[in-house]
Amino acid sequence: MSFETIAWQDEGVVMIDQTRLPLEEVYVTCRNAEEVARAIRTMVIRGAPAIGVAAAMGVALGMKRQLDEVGEAGLSDRFEAVCRLLAATRPTAVNLFWALDRMRQVWSQANGRGLPAAEAVKLLVAAAVKIREQDIETNRRLGALGAAVVPEKARVLTHCNAGALACAGYGTALGVIRAAHEQGKIREVLADETRPLLQGARLTAWELQRDQIPVTLITDNMAAHFIAAGAVDLVVVGADRIAANGDTANKIGTLGVAIIAREFQVPFYVAAPCSTIDFSLANGGEIPIEERDREEVVAIRGQVVAPAEVAVYNPAFDVTPAAFITGIITEKGIFKPEELLPRLCRN
Amino acid sequence: MSFETIAWQDEGVVMIDQTRLPLEEVYVTCRNAEEVARAIRTMVIRGAPAIGVAAAMGVALGMKRQLDEVGEAGLSDRFEAVCRLLAATRPTAVNLFWALDRMRQVWSQANGRGLPAAEAVKLLVAAAVKIREQDIETNRRLGALGAAVVPEKARVLTHCNAGALACAGYGTALGVIRAAHEQGKIREVLADETRPLLQGARLTAWELQRDQIPVTLITDNMAAHFIAAGAVDLVVVGADRIAANGDTANKIGTLGVAIIAREFQVPFYVAAPCSTIDFSLANGGEIPIEERDREEVVAIRGQVVAPAEVAVYNPAFDVTPAAFITGIITEKGIFKPEELLPRLCRN
Repeated sequence: MSFETIAWQDEGVVMIDQTRLPLEEVYVTCRNAEEVARAIRTMVIRGAPAIGVAAAMGVALGMKRQLDEVGEAGLSDRFEAVCRLLAATRPTAVNLFWALDRMRQVWSQANGRGLPAAEAVKLLVAAAVKIREQDIETNRRLGALGAAVVPEKARVLTHCNAGALACAGYGTALGVIRAAHEQGKIREVLADETRPLLQGARLTAWELQRDQIPVTLITDNMAAHFIAAGAVDLVVVGADRIAANGDTANKIGTLGVAIIAREFQVPFYVAAPCSTIDFSLANGGEIPIEERDREEVVAIRGQVVAPAEVAVYNPAFDVTPAAFITGIITEKGIFKPEELLPRLCRN
Repeated sequence: MSFETIAWQDEGVVMIDQTRLPLEEVYVTCRNAEEVARAIRTMVIRGAPAIGVAAAMGVALGMKRQLDEVGEAGLSDRFEAVCRLLAATRPTAVNLFWALDRMRQVWSQANGRGLPAAEAVKLLVAAAVKIREQDIETNRRLGALGAAVVPEKARVLTHCNAGALACAGYGTALGVIRAAHEQGKIREVLADETRPLLQGARLTAWELQRDQIPVTLITDNMAAHFIAAGAVDLVVVGADRIAANGDTANKIGTLGVAIIAREFQVPFYVAAPCSTIDFSLANGGEIPIEERDREEVVAIRGQVVAPAEVAVYNPAFDVTPAAFITGIITEKGIFKPEELLPRLCRN
């Protein structure tokens, strides 16, 4: 891999600007928590695991800056405000809230041990860096496990970008594809372009080309045509939040692909780290779905494609009921949706 | 309706330029058959019934110009060349070939009666103008019939543009919606944007707004989300070619909507004139599917949205098997797919 999605550096949190790919490969440096929050909101960085890493780094960076500005004295009071800032960026991906909880634990343990604030901030930085490293390890593990369900000479369809760009690296759905490719199993990846923000066209096609994995781009509405024609052996997508019963929120359009795949008996897998599972929600109906700006639908890269003032719906995610999901590929194994709660909660 | 899709005028065939809607309302005049053929190929005019009208007018215009240029003597030899030119524009919509056959009949009858070539050309013009008028009448009739299947306060989803712009006027799928709207039955139309060429965003949204029919634009991949949520009471789409068994070729993406609609028991109707039915084909597998240029997928209104050189598939149509179709709304009645051949061929 010749790019880094997100990295901690002395001057701040460095991210590849995903709004400008594939035309430009530009890295931006967020120098405080506000800039990290804006990068998440405007989708400079996106993808549930990557948002989690960014939020953790945002907390560490925010507290580092607070330490510089206000000193050790008032620091503890600022912690929750920094977390709230980052929590308010995007509602659906649970990895963001999971990462903030991890950072809260680090902070309160450090405070509980009576460490000086400067030491506690160092622990926050170390924790954020570790979340990033663990994410890559997790993806390599789930990719290796997931490769087992990919048949030889597979034609695999994916939606949106659950790739290295959506994570600290390697990817979830694309991690499975990468691992299967390393085993010589991938004949072709069909990448849905994924309107409105075209993460499939802009990001999935770009990162698979980089890795010389054969990829063909299609519009979202072509998936049924190719699945019906027998041109797809397997579907694998990522997830933004998985409820306890296996219902899965993922990028808008995932539900349609899942319904079509089942109609033609094509296996449909979700690939995600366990941090994407929200056991506090009984089912997908409880997952908050972000509604984004109408401009994303009526204009594409600044080109207006619809009449002015037309009404628009723009839900960023949909929920695929567990019944449509063949299996959920995690770093701890591949589970049927109904096995998640009993098997993972008893670990 | 405050616009005309296509009209015969002294100087040539005048069309609203559908590639420039909704940003500009520009009319172009095709002054010979070559210009009509180019307008069809480049989708200045599109939609199966509109293509049929354009092809008929293209033949009339072509022969009128030939008469001016070569005189009466060599005229008969030119007829088939003009037909071939127009037949080679687009392969899927059968209305084009149906219209050319009608023009051939007119020509051979005129020749059979020994009419002077100038008189025969006048008959071609009259026939083309009549095909246009009949198309509007046909749509009003099928619209009125189709409105009966639309429930009160209906939320109707449509894909692509099977509207006044796709026909000489009034529309097929949008004809049903217009007639239902005149009866006060339409609560909301959900318009799929219809990538790659965005006929839903650019054309359907535009013409429904013109008629003050409430329309909300969504990306294609949102259809499943809204159908699953119970926000759609009925789907109605047009058709480019219907095989004898009811299998229906229509704009790419139609198949996916049909599969999703059936999953949630939402009625899925095809609205088309009988001229769209090709009884010479036993089933949809025999319908030729046009593959269009990759540029339509990788760039949107000139804005590149994918990596250079990425492989692309771009089938312009898909085939929805009859099993997914609740009914086919024609000017001669509403038929179950399996009733088409027995009931219409015995008329």
